[in-house]
Amino acid sequence: MTTTAGALAFLGETVVEGRVAERRFEVLREGEPIPGILWAPAAVSRAAPLVLLGHGGSGHKRSDRMLELGIRFARDRGFAAAAIDGPGHGDRGGLTSTDDPAYRAIWQRPNNVPEMVADWRAALAALSELELVDAARVGYWGLSMGTMFGLPFVATEPRIRAAVLGKAGLTGSSVDRSGIAPHLREAAPNVTCPTYFHVQWDDERFDRYGSLFLFDQIAAAEKELHTFPGLHAEMTPQALESSIAFLARHLSA
Amino acid sequence: MTTTAGALAFLGETVVEGRVAERRFEVLREGEPIPGILWAPAAVSRAAPLVLLGHGGSGHKRSDRMLELGIRFARDRGFAAAAIDGPGHGDRGGLTSTDDPAYRAIWQRPNNVPEMVADWRAALAALSELELVDAARVGYWGLSMGTMFGLPFVATEPRIRAAVLGKAGLTGSSVDRSGIAPHLREAAPNVTCPTYFHVQWDDERFDRYGSLFLFDQIAAAEKELHTFPGLHAEMTPQALESSIAFLARHLSA
Repeated sequence: MTTTAGALAFLGETVVEGRVAERRFEVLREGEPIPGILWAPAAVSRAAPLVLLGHGGSGHKRSDRMLELGIRFARDRGFAAAAIDGPGHGDRGGLTSTDDPAYRAIWQRPNNVPEMVADWRAALAALSELELVDAARVGYWGLSMGTMFGLPFVATEPRIRAAVLGKAGLTGSSVDRSGIAPHLREAAPNVTCPTYFHVQWDDERFDRYGSLFLFDQIAAAEKELHTFPGLHAEMTPQALESSIAFLARHLSA
Repeated sequence: MTTTAGALAFLGETVVEGRVAERRFEVLREGEPIPGILWAPAAVSRAAPLVLLGHGGSGHKRSDRMLELGIRFARDRGFAAAAIDGPGHGDRGGLTSTDDPAYRAIWQRPNNVPEMVADWRAALAALSELELVDAARVGYWGLSMGTMFGLPFVATEPRIRAAVLGKAGLTGSSVDRSGIAPHLREAAPNVTCPTYFHVQWDDERFDRYGSLFLFDQIAAAEKELHTFPGLHAEMTPQALESSIAFLARHLSA
């Protein structure tokens, strides 16, 4: 069943975990569909804060981490949360490994980042029209590729009131692979919302100093750096909860 | 009323907040009394973890922060917690400002740090004899001067199983004043227990890079860096809770 709500077409609804409703949606931008998922409390009494979730490289809008975050924001915090597929990922290409040559090709395409930023802006505009969303309280959560796209998005989107970023920096093998660092360096001084920045201290793909320098470039007066031991893909339950709590604190007020 | 328990003399007991018992104590080291305070759950059923609390410069064993931490560890976590006066502070000199020339004099005294480390070791040995203390689960919490003394203590004391350190680094006006940095630089590679390191990003007394470099020198495989906006003396409730939760997690197991 397809229903439309403003610029947004809902493609179906599932209830996960009883108290959380999950809905697939599409937003059109220049005729192309942007596929997404929206999680929200099954029973909504008033407009809730919205957290946009940016998945990592080789992931997709309903990867384990996105699903976990969507459920936790909706169930535990009463928030809405939404994820969209990145270029080449999920329903937009189905990449499952950052070693896939197609992944590198994405990053070598001109306008890759501005296009994804435009996707996010279109999705945010459509989601903001929903009654269940309080458009004055929108946050962003995205690490690794979720930062490589998300940091430039947050930097140019004043509707984002708080952000969780990280697992990305100015140097490292992932930078060599993507050539994305200049974008991050240029965008960081325009990030002014309260920012939580996550670093895996032993990250084998973005080295720690390149991450610290990126953090240092972020202009937000209210910014926090949190580093934890372990490789790029590792993240402890405490670290995840800490990042969720940061957004909850800033968006609940 | 004075009662003795092994090497420790209790000088009186107060119950604060109903569920927390607070006791002043003294431990003798080479004939000199080390004055301290022990907080513990008023009703103790089995040996509890112990957190040693190192106060900051111009503070003392029962400064607001120490009292708050003692109560929170005892009441909220069921832990014991103990603080002792640093040299020149509290009952050992009564310093109330780090601008006091006597403060600088403390740091210019040879063996200042080894003496305080020895005080901590004597206090820990005495406290470990108490039935209410589980000597296998001891942690340390100390920022600023609590790190300037505490980091060398943690570095040489294998009984410390987890530590909260920070608000201190290798460069900054407080380093110029104390000349303490060589000590910290030498000791950090011997800190091997799980360590939570707190940085105030706008610290006017220890600059951020000197703090990051100190953190980098800490040898612990399991170490976390947490930076928050604000000047040296500032600390948000969330940052404090986060440091408490770290010790609770590592000492509860």
